[in-house]
Amino acid sequence: MSATWDQIVERLRELSDLASAIKLLHWDQATMMPSAGGAARARAQATLQATAHGRFVDPEMGALIDGLSEESLSQEQEANLRLLRRDYDKAVRVPQELVRELAEVSGRAYQAWTEARPAADFSLLQPHMARLVELKKQEAEALGYANEPYDALLDQYEPGMTTAEVEAMFQGLLRGLKPLVADVLANVPDPPDWLGYRYDPDRQMAFCHWLVSQLNFDVTQGRLDISPHPFTIHIGPGDVRQTTRPDQHNLMMPLYAAVHETGHALYEQGLPAEWADFPIGGPPSLGMHESQSRLWENQVARSRPFTDFLLPRLKERFPEEIGMVSPEEFYRGVNHPQRTLIRVTADELTYNLHVGFRFELELALFRDELSVADLPAAWDDKMSEHLGLCPDSIADGVLQDMHWSIGSFGYFPTYTLGTIYSAVLFAQATAQLPGLEAELRSGVTLRLLEWLRENVHGLGYRHDAKDLIERISGGPVTPEPLLDYLRAKYTALYPSA
Amino acid sequence: MSATWDQIVERLRELSDLASAIKLLHWDQATMMPSAGGAARARAQATLQATAHGRFVDPEMGALIDGLSEESLSQEQEANLRLLRRDYDKAVRVPQELVRELAEVSGRAYQAWTEARPAADFSLLQPHMARLVELKKQEAEALGYANEPYDALLDQYEPGMTTAEVEAMFQGLLRGLKPLVADVLANVPDPPDWLGYRYDPDRQMAFCHWLVSQLNFDVTQGRLDISPHPFTIHIGPGDVRQTTRPDQHNLMMPLYAAVHETGHALYEQGLPAEWADFPIGGPPSLGMHESQSRLWENQVARSRPFTDFLLPRLKERFPEEIGMVSPEEFYRGVNHPQRTLIRVTADELTYNLHVGFRFELELALFRDELSVADLPAAWDDKMSEHLGLCPDSIADGVLQDMHWSIGSFGYFPTYTLGTIYSAVLFAQATAQLPGLEAELRSGVTLRLLEWLRENVHGLGYRHDAKDLIERISGGPVTPEPLLDYLRAKYTALYPSA
Repeated sequence: MSATWDQIVERLRELSDLASAIKLLHWDQATMMPSAGGAARARAQATLQATAHGRFVDPEMGALIDGLSEESLSQEQEANLRLLRRDYDKAVRVPQELVRELAEVSGRAYQAWTEARPAADFSLLQPHMARLVELKKQEAEALGYANEPYDALLDQYEPGMTTAEVEAMFQGLLRGLKPLVADVLANVPDPPDWLGYRYDPDRQMAFCHWLVSQLNFDVTQGRLDISPHPFTIHIGPGDVRQTTRPDQHNLMMPLYAAVHETGHALYEQGLPAEWADFPIGGPPSLGMHESQSRLWENQVARSRPFTDFLLPRLKERFPEEIGMVSPEEFYRGVNHPQRTLIRVTADELTYNLHVGFRFELELALFRDELSVADLPAAWDDKMSEHLGLCPDSIADGVLQDMHWSIGSFGYFPTYTLGTIYSAVLFAQATAQLPGLEAELRSGVTLRLLEWLRENVHGLGYRHDAKDLIERISGGPVTPEPLLDYLRAKYTALYPSA
Repeated sequence: MSATWDQIVERLRELSDLASAIKLLHWDQATMMPSAGGAARARAQATLQATAHGRFVDPEMGALIDGLSEESLSQEQEANLRLLRRDYDKAVRVPQELVRELAEVSGRAYQAWTEARPAADFSLLQPHMARLVELKKQEAEALGYANEPYDALLDQYEPGMTTAEVEAMFQGLLRGLKPLVADVLANVPDPPDWLGYRYDPDRQMAFCHWLVSQLNFDVTQGRLDISPHPFTIHIGPGDVRQTTRPDQHNLMMPLYAAVHETGHALYEQGLPAEWADFPIGGPPSLGMHESQSRLWENQVARSRPFTDFLLPRLKERFPEEIGMVSPEEFYRGVNHPQRTLIRVTADELTYNLHVGFRFELELALFRDELSVADLPAAWDDKMSEHLGLCPDSIADGVLQDMHWSIGSFGYFPTYTLGTIYSAVLFAQATAQLPGLEAELRSGVTLRLLEWLRENVHGLGYRHDAKDLIERISGGPVTPEPLLDYLRAKYTALYPSA
């Protein structure tokens, strides 16, 4: 190892340590912090983020990267250097003043969103969001792009994927999905009553603790806690934390949120530990991360074999509430689809319609085909077009998600890309692992996890997400496996009349 | 406000934010972190501490302090500047290489202590600790002192107090304490059986949560959690956290640990919020901090009026265990004194004997009258002289405390200084607050807390601890109020035969 490499390593460790502290500040804020600590916490987070950013864009870092380019490196060092250069170049390309203004305006816009949503008043958010869109366009120009500004935004979350590719994939998905949804929903009865019974929150959490361990989340190297919005966070090596939210009027949400987060958490626990401080030690994209949460939540835990395993265990905890529910009723209840206004409560079948029209609206904004002022009306039109619903209140319309208020444009499509990837991966795993269904029926998921560790988790960021999925499937990424899976599952559940 | 002042403020805020993150890393490690995260956590803590130290000793900070000295400042700005200059000068006086070696050797020595204690083998610790004493002597030389090196070490924890003053105070205290202890212990019967019954840990914690709120710990601006070693930490404004440790074979320890920590926490919650990021917004010394914990733990919560308030509430939680215990029996049980080998389990009467001989040993080490190699034998001699006991194992002897392994020489005496201060303060409060005893009998402590806020908490660091105590009492700090309090209490409890 050269002296330059050693210096790079030292700097990456420092950045990793700062990131670890920033992540702990965030986790604590969401799970443990007394609310009175919020103002001081926000300031501490901003300070540490500025410190970390300053250390990364330090010209000495650039000089070390340049120096390393002239040395002979191992394949893994080369891979790290390539990602490091890419991230460094992107970071220094955006002027400091723009970074500062983006942080400031998104802070104001987020604050405005927290007030606009309960007040159902878009005008509170509109000026801040309009400015934010302008600034994000400036950021895209500074970062550079191949075809259109949105490419640059998308690239921050799903590197290696272009807007045109994603657009084609979404069009293919929606073309297949819309008639399927229409067919299925025409035959869906009312949801069963037991879904809405009262379920003791402490027993829900006890069940979630059992369930995440059953799925091989390593609780000696992590935690499961409670937060209003479930999330997973990698604090540092040996410390991956997930959360869920018990809900006394909803048994399935906390349970499937825990499985979803376990998917993220298993991925984090399976990333290559020896590269923990390096770019190749992380995930290649948000979509790849989401593929893991979706795979465990849907393909595994909403499958008939696994719900058959789950039901008797759940009956032990809630004998009075669901003692009489049959395996068939349980499977149908867990997979009950319906039109809903709210993305985060949407089921597996309709979820990607919600994402689909958000992506279309983002494209329109960044192609200058839609102004922020016209966004609420455009939202309602899309909602009606894709889901046949119109919100009574804007709080359940364009104001329902926080993403845009913090400037996260290009983030939404990764939810659907992840779902598409998950279907590809699960189809491959099923093909390569004969007997998997029987294992799932016994609650045994270790062989599937090992397959994912070998093919996905353990590789970290050796390939862009799309490339990795194509290597695994041996062909281009398409929405067909997802459509095949949904068609097979839902036409069996709800055959056309 | 001048531009220089604004720049100082900005830097102090940054340091305060870094300190907040460092404290959260520590709190989390002690309460929440999965043990597998320990190695990464230690590295992250070291990185953030180095970052904070580097930012503080930055020559630009020195230049700003110099610049401010030439401006006309408010009284409070002057007070801040004086403390800031003192801390900056001390920080830059110690060479970077010595700072680094101290951190490294104390890290190794602490690690050695964690192995030496269970192995009851001092030789594992000895070489590291010998080096640490050498380095601390070098640090004392670098810092400078009036009369002897120990002055410099003491000054890090109890600024404004000299070794000679502390030595005289300890001698006075021990002169009065030893015959009192001998008299009392000659008349003490065996402890009552109910002290050692099994008490459900969950119910212990529920009681502790009730108790800390009863004592006006603001749970909307703090938390109570569980950790192996109880502590209190100020994460940031609006966020003060304390811990205790339930123990199924000990009802009193978790409960009085919670009261002790509540004393620290009430102090932190009462410090002047407007100066949170500034030197005058903190406590003047460890001794002053300990005075608050001791006052609430002993003078308040071990008093007959307060135990009379406590007992019926405790019986509600533990009716089977202590339903038959009378108020007199409870008061005597809570105040049961005995000779013990271990400082942290010592009672109010004998506690300061433990501290007293540790202080004498520290003085001998730093006056070159004792070598680290001879420390275990010297410890046993002192233990025998002060407490009439000799440990069977060195694990319960010189290896029982971690302080010396992390280089905290000069820390122990602050425990006793705090106890001395607490007696002065409580005597003053009692004199100034007629009817206090009746209030305590009803569990009402708010007027006492308000008196402390006005006279101590709200002042932050406007005066050195000794000066503050002298302003409040109108005379020099002496151990007499503590001796008077202990004599009155224990001769009433255990009259001479």
